[in-house]
Amino acid sequence: MDYTAKLDAALQRLHDEDRYRTFIDIERERGNFPHAVWTRPDGEKTPVTVWCGNDYLGMGQHPKVLGAMHEAVDATGAGSGGTRNISGTTVYHKRLEAEIADLHGKEGALVFSSAYIANDATLSTLPQLFPGLIIYSDALNHASMIEGIRRNGGAKRIFRHNDLAHLRELLAADDPAAPKLIAFESVYSMDGDFGPIKEICDLADEFNALTYLDEVHAVGMYGPRGGGVAERDGLMHRIDIINGTLGKAFGVFGGYIAASVKMCDAVRSYAPGFIFTTSIPPAVAAGAAASIAHLKTDTALREAHQTQAKILKTRLKGMGLPIIDHGSHIVPLIVGDPKHTKMMSDMLLEAYGIYVQPINFPTVPRGTERLRFTPSPVHGAKEMDGLIAALDALWSHCALNRAELAG
Amino acid sequence: MDYTAKLDAALQRLHDEDRYRTFIDIERERGNFPHAVWTRPDGEKTPVTVWCGNDYLGMGQHPKVLGAMHEAVDATGAGSGGTRNISGTTVYHKRLEAEIADLHGKEGALVFSSAYIANDATLSTLPQLFPGLIIYSDALNHASMIEGIRRNGGAKRIFRHNDLAHLRELLAADDPAAPKLIAFESVYSMDGDFGPIKEICDLADEFNALTYLDEVHAVGMYGPRGGGVAERDGLMHRIDIINGTLGKAFGVFGGYIAASVKMCDAVRSYAPGFIFTTSIPPAVAAGAAASIAHLKTDTALREAHQTQAKILKTRLKGMGLPIIDHGSHIVPLIVGDPKHTKMMSDMLLEAYGIYVQPINFPTVPRGTERLRFTPSPVHGAKEMDGLIAALDALWSHCALNRAELAG
Repeated sequence: MDYTAKLDAALQRLHDEDRYRTFIDIERERGNFPHAVWTRPDGEKTPVTVWCGNDYLGMGQHPKVLGAMHEAVDATGAGSGGTRNISGTTVYHKRLEAEIADLHGKEGALVFSSAYIANDATLSTLPQLFPGLIIYSDALNHASMIEGIRRNGGAKRIFRHNDLAHLRELLAADDPAAPKLIAFESVYSMDGDFGPIKEICDLADEFNALTYLDEVHAVGMYGPRGGGVAERDGLMHRIDIINGTLGKAFGVFGGYIAASVKMCDAVRSYAPGFIFTTSIPPAVAAGAAASIAHLKTDTALREAHQTQAKILKTRLKGMGLPIIDHGSHIVPLIVGDPKHTKMMSDMLLEAYGIYVQPINFPTVPRGTERLRFTPSPVHGAKEMDGLIAALDALWSHCALNRAELAG
Repeated sequence: MDYTAKLDAALQRLHDEDRYRTFIDIERERGNFPHAVWTRPDGEKTPVTVWCGNDYLGMGQHPKVLGAMHEAVDATGAGSGGTRNISGTTVYHKRLEAEIADLHGKEGALVFSSAYIANDATLSTLPQLFPGLIIYSDALNHASMIEGIRRNGGAKRIFRHNDLAHLRELLAADDPAAPKLIAFESVYSMDGDFGPIKEICDLADEFNALTYLDEVHAVGMYGPRGGGVAERDGLMHRIDIINGTLGKAFGVFGGYIAASVKMCDAVRSYAPGFIFTTSIPPAVAAGAAASIAHLKTDTALREAHQTQAKILKTRLKGMGLPIIDHGSHIVPLIVGDPKHTKMMSDMLLEAYGIYVQPINFPTVPRGTERLRFTPSPVHGAKEMDGLIAALDALWSHCALNRAELAG
C-alpha cells in the first residue's frame, strides 16, 4: 500500500476534471467593503473588489457588530473555555439564542459552531427522537443537509427539486402512521431560486409531517425583520425547525436552529455535534446578536440589497449575458465549462482587480459551471460600472455566446 | 403520530436516568480568571470560581491574544464572509495554518470550525482517499472521532482502550495489503490517562498503517513548544495526522489537523465539512495564532500548570478522596452515582461559589460519574484552599466513602 500514490491519484482526479480549487488569499478592509487586499502566492499585495462574498449586507463591518465584539473580548476574553454543558454557556450565548428565537417567532433556539453542523447534527439526531422517521429531502439541498440525513442511515426519500407532485407521491406511498419530516431550503444558493414554502407546508399538514427549512441564504435579507422568506410570506409559524446562519447576512460566524422549547431541548440533549464541542466565543455571540437586533429594524438596508441585485441583473441582461434570474439577490452567470470559468475568474482578478470565485462541479452540475456575483449595499455605482465593463470586455475576448448558455 | 409525545418521551428518558443536563450560565471576568459571574435562572448574579473550564492555561485572557483579536476586528471586520474557497481565505487563516504546521513539525495544516468537525470531516473523508481503508479505533476515542469513523460506513475495528495486544491481533487479522489507519488520543480527557504513542507507532510501522493522533487535551500544554505529548516524547514525525484544538489550552476557538502538504491538500479538496462551511472569523484566527506563538516559548506557564495539577491531586489524595491520577493535568474525582454527582455539583455552586459540572453517562461509563477539576496557572492558593475546604465539608456531609470509589 503506497499511501502517497493514493493521495496523488485523488488530487490528479481533480486536476483532470479542472476542478482543483485554489484558495485566493484576501483581506477585506473594515470601513471600505467590498474593497480588499489580495496577497498573491509570492507575497505581493494588490487591491481588489470582492464580488462573491456572502456577507450580503456588509454587516461584517457594522460599528454595532464590531463594538459588541470588542466589548465582549474586553469583558470576558477570547474563547468560551468549554462546551455548552461544561462551563461554555455564557450570558452572550443565552442572549443570542433569545434574539434568534424572537427573530423567528419560536419558543427557543440553539446555536451551533456553524449552520453546516446545525444541519448535520440536527438532521442526524431527529431519527433518534422519532424512531422510524422518514426524511423527504429536496434533491438540491445543501451538502450539510445531505450529510446529516445520510449520517445514521435512517430512511430517506429524495424528491426532485421543488417538485410538489413528486413529493406528494413519495409521502403518499409511505405508511401514514410513520413519522415524517420534509427538509428543504427557502433560497437555493447556486441558482438563487425559492422553495415553495406554502405548498410544502400544505403537504406537511396533509400527511402529518414535520417541516425543516434551511433559510441560510435568506435570514437577515427577507421579511420585515429579516426572519427570512418564511417571515416575508407569513409562514414562519408553519415551520417546525428553521435553520439559519450567523456567517452570511449577519456577517459574523456560527449557525442555529429555531424551534419549540421541547424540540430544542431534545436536540440539545441528544446531538453529539452540539454536546461535544466548544461553544462559539462570547465575542462572536455578542457580534451576531447585535447584528440580528440591528437588522430587525433596518429595512432600508434590505431594500438597498435587493435594489443592487436588480440593477446588476438588469445591466447583465442588457448586455445579453446568460444570467439566471429567479428574483432573489443571487446573480449566477453561467459559463458552462470548468476551464472557461476558471479562466474568466483568473482574468477578472489579474486584469481588473475583480474577485469572483469559479463555481464548479460538484457544487453545481457539470455543464453549468458559473461565476456567482453577490451584489450588496456596499457595492456602489463605481464598483458596478467596473464589473460591467470588465465582463463586457472579457466575454467578447473569450468569444462566449451571449444568452445561449443560461440554464 | 404524536410528535410532541415522542419529544416528551426522549426527554423523560434523560430525567429517569438522572442525566438531564442543565446549562449553567456564567461569564468569566477578563483579567480575573478563574473568577466569573453566575447568572441564575431568575437573573440574580453571583460570583463563582470556575473549576471545570478547558481554557487550561488561562490564555483566553492573555493580552497578546486579545490584542490580536481587537486588531483583526479593526482591520478586517467581524466574519470572514465566505467559505475557504469562496472569499473566506484570509491572511489570518494562512498565518494560523503556518503557525500550526510549524508547531507540529509538519508541512501543512488545515483549520476547521472545531476540532470536533476536524475529526469528523477528516476521518470520514480518508476512506475516499484510500479506498478500502480499515480504521483501528481506540474504544475510548472522543465522540467526534467515533462519528467520523462511523459516518460513511467504512471498515472499522475497535481495540480495547490502550490495549496493544488487542490492536496487534486486529491488525494481523486483516489483509496485509489493505490500507490501514490507527486513530487514538494522546490524553483521554475523562480519566486523564495517556495513549501509548510510541508503541502504536511501532505497530503502525510493522503493519504499514497510517497514524491519526488526537492531541486536543495536550496541545499547548505538553512538549517544549506546546506541540503536545508526541512532541514531548519526540514522536511527532511518526504521526501522519495530528488533530488539535484552538479552543482549550490556546483559549480561543476552532480546530485543525496538521499533516503532509499532500494529505492536507486532499482533505481540503474532498471533505464536505471543510469545503461547505464559512471559515472562522479572522479575529479568531488571529487570536489563536498569537496564542500558539506565545506558547511556543512560555515554558513557565506549562510548568505552572503541571504544578497546580500536582498540588491539587496531592491535597485531594491527602484527604482520602477517590481521584484518578495518571500524571496528567486532569483531575477526575469519582462520585460513582449520577444523583450524588449532580447534588455535589449543585451544593458546591450554591453554598461555596465553586463551579464544577457533573459528568455523567454517556460521557463516562455508568457507575463512574464524576466531578472533573481542571486546575490551571490562574487558580491560586486562595482558590485551591477554598476548593479543598468545600470538598472536605461536602464529602463528609454526603457520607461518601473516601478512596473506595476510585476507578
